[in-house]
Amino acid sequence: MIKEMCNQAKEASQQLALAQTRQKNECLLAMADLIWEQRPAILNANQGDVQGAERAGLSPAMIDRLMLNESRLEGIAASLRDVAALPDPVGKVFDARELPNGLRLHKQRVPIGVLAVIYESRPNVTIEVTGLALKTGNAIILRGGSETIATNRALVAVIRAAMQQSGLPPEAVQFIDNPDRALVNELLKMHDTIGMLIPRGGNQLHQFCRENSTIPVITGGIGICHLFVDESANQDASLKVIQNAKVQRPTVCNALDTVLVHRGIAATFLPRLVERLKADNVTFRAHDNAMPYLKGFSAPLVQPAGSEDFDTEWLSLVLGVKVVDGLEEAIRHIAAHSTGHSDGILTENPDHANQFVARVDSAAVYVNASTRYTDGGQFGLGAEVAVSTQRLHARGPMALEELTTYKWVAQGDYSVRP
Amino acid sequence: MIKEMCNQAKEASQQLALAQTRQKNECLLAMADLIWEQRPAILNANQGDVQGAERAGLSPAMIDRLMLNESRLEGIAASLRDVAALPDPVGKVFDARELPNGLRLHKQRVPIGVLAVIYESRPNVTIEVTGLALKTGNAIILRGGSETIATNRALVAVIRAAMQQSGLPPEAVQFIDNPDRALVNELLKMHDTIGMLIPRGGNQLHQFCRENSTIPVITGGIGICHLFVDESANQDASLKVIQNAKVQRPTVCNALDTVLVHRGIAATFLPRLVERLKADNVTFRAHDNAMPYLKGFSAPLVQPAGSEDFDTEWLSLVLGVKVVDGLEEAIRHIAAHSTGHSDGILTENPDHANQFVARVDSAAVYVNASTRYTDGGQFGLGAEVAVSTQRLHARGPMALEELTTYKWVAQGDYSVRP
Repeated sequence: MIKEMCNQAKEASQQLALAQTRQKNECLLAMADLIWEQRPAILNANQGDVQGAERAGLSPAMIDRLMLNESRLEGIAASLRDVAALPDPVGKVFDARELPNGLRLHKQRVPIGVLAVIYESRPNVTIEVTGLALKTGNAIILRGGSETIATNRALVAVIRAAMQQSGLPPEAVQFIDNPDRALVNELLKMHDTIGMLIPRGGNQLHQFCRENSTIPVITGGIGICHLFVDESANQDASLKVIQNAKVQRPTVCNALDTVLVHRGIAATFLPRLVERLKADNVTFRAHDNAMPYLKGFSAPLVQPAGSEDFDTEWLSLVLGVKVVDGLEEAIRHIAAHSTGHSDGILTENPDHANQFVARVDSAAVYVNASTRYTDGGQFGLGAEVAVSTQRLHARGPMALEELTTYKWVAQGDYSVRP
Repeated sequence: MIKEMCNQAKEASQQLALAQTRQKNECLLAMADLIWEQRPAILNANQGDVQGAERAGLSPAMIDRLMLNESRLEGIAASLRDVAALPDPVGKVFDARELPNGLRLHKQRVPIGVLAVIYESRPNVTIEVTGLALKTGNAIILRGGSETIATNRALVAVIRAAMQQSGLPPEAVQFIDNPDRALVNELLKMHDTIGMLIPRGGNQLHQFCRENSTIPVITGGIGICHLFVDESANQDASLKVIQNAKVQRPTVCNALDTVLVHRGIAATFLPRLVERLKADNVTFRAHDNAMPYLKGFSAPLVQPAGSEDFDTEWLSLVLGVKVVDGLEEAIRHIAAHSTGHSDGILTENPDHANQFVARVDSAAVYVNASTRYTDGGQFGLGAEVAVSTQRLHARGPMALEELTTYKWVAQGDYSVRP
């Protein structure tokens, strides 16, 4: 069944790769309209999933993530219209050159072919990744969470109806309509047809895919993010940046996890930091070397960090703090504990800024800015399908171009290699 | 032992990533000099390997591949000087932009970090891939064939001496000095330290790596390559291109395997093709539908193709021929049988050329040119570490830039996400 799905997707991808931008955009707009028109059916299916989740005793946070309503559907439809408005990377010619041997050579952007996405509860992902895949001429195989299977079934029906309506092959969107985990194992071996696997979920899912997939995997989405407050930093402004990075949306991967404070300002800065963020309900895990500066505060506001706290992605209003002797120690701490997602320095010292940028090897490295910027929308890419923290193909926010590859095209005059 | 090697390489890679271009080039030139100076020791070690291979009964072709002499060492040293002369991609800034939110953003090329290369008999690979890795600031872990272990040991000693001499960390080049296959299995799981795995060898090695590695693998190097001779093609010129593609160096991956001939010219073109290439000792495997046009020839020059012949990379002076009804059937044959390496059309019809380019999805697609051009040197890239036929990160010849990745660098003014 999985093999047949993959073959169908592969065949449809060949047609989709040749689709004109206008036709793909019409399809995205039709999809947006149809989601809105079909909202009773979608919301009805979603209600079934929500009731199932309640019966299964899922947490209110989980249930909130899978729940749809009219306003969320409106947002989903709007995101499709946004994708339709973005430039189409497919067909773009680059690195053109004429070689001394007379060959005219260029690279040309083409779709990856077939993408597979394994994701968890949020049904908006179904529409968002499908929209990005279609825009870039890729077929897609979706494997969502079992708790949203009815919702996803309804959404995929709408997607395929819109494709049919626009003259694009509905087989380009395949949905694994069966929660059996054995099917995932089978899917992970389909490297003959699937060009890229994108897991969207926790660390365990990424690890499982990395270990079991023969398809190239884009791992990412796990962010243990750091800000180093250098001695020269503007302290008021730094507090504002840290607050934004920690508090604005603590449950996402680009939220701040650890603040490293230069010893020279620790006595003044650390107490101010705690005072500032306690109003936002942030609690602190302080390294032994930071505790002496925080004697005025007690648990649960400030407590000593445990042995694994600096290797924890908090995803909540907890913030690790540690004192460092300076730039060198900050960089070493980050090299040892960062997941390579987003790390930054707050400083007025341009030399320190340059050294930090050169030596911290994360997907996004910041000077005097919040880690929260790591996002396809914020970076001006218009969308994002994942944030890659691995090193091949793409790093950081993956948008349209990152869902393409290229081929070399060479035009000669019956040219032969000398 | 493997883990310790990887950790050493990782640590050294952090230093190497910051090395100046001038220092890296000095090291490459020192390496070239030292290879020449140390040629007695290297050739002595190589002689031991050659004798071992003879005792083990390896084929003369295999022994020729692992054999070094002064002229080959001269070539290896020259290739290092060529790499020193190439531009250094590391540090290159691209996609710079200032965002409406005030953030100044760019991408910056950085090394992958640690590369691992698993390869077979040719000891020149040891020097070539190490040179390319060092030029791009990457550490490298080498696992060569057991039949060249003494040669590789001598070469790595020279490499490390040159690095020491140039002030670069010798630990950046690690050599698995033990033919135990269990060590390869261990190596393939080192995704925490190794960023990219490059197998160089046959199909089985690539498959083994794809199935067992948790490190991203660059598969490639297998080419079932096609040329389609369209009805409108200049036949004389086409014969010249086919001859070049098949005969110039039949043992390599970009050599031609199958010629597809338009039915409208089969009666004239096919006999001419056989006449032309028989002088080069080419023999033909003809599809049933081509045999009627080749009645004038007999086996072994022309024989009927077996059921797997069109899925065989010949690597020898054998050429498959098949008649097709036209462009459509040619494209379908290529989609079914190509390994996505190098495929081309010979035609005077621009519309057919365009359709072929749009629809044939190989790493290199040719119009009126020999498939033999698919090569880093020919493409003007100056070098090549592998030819990728997978779709992620890089396709076709992989040179210096393909051994790098990028990071995003964002500079703000204590900027916070709105």
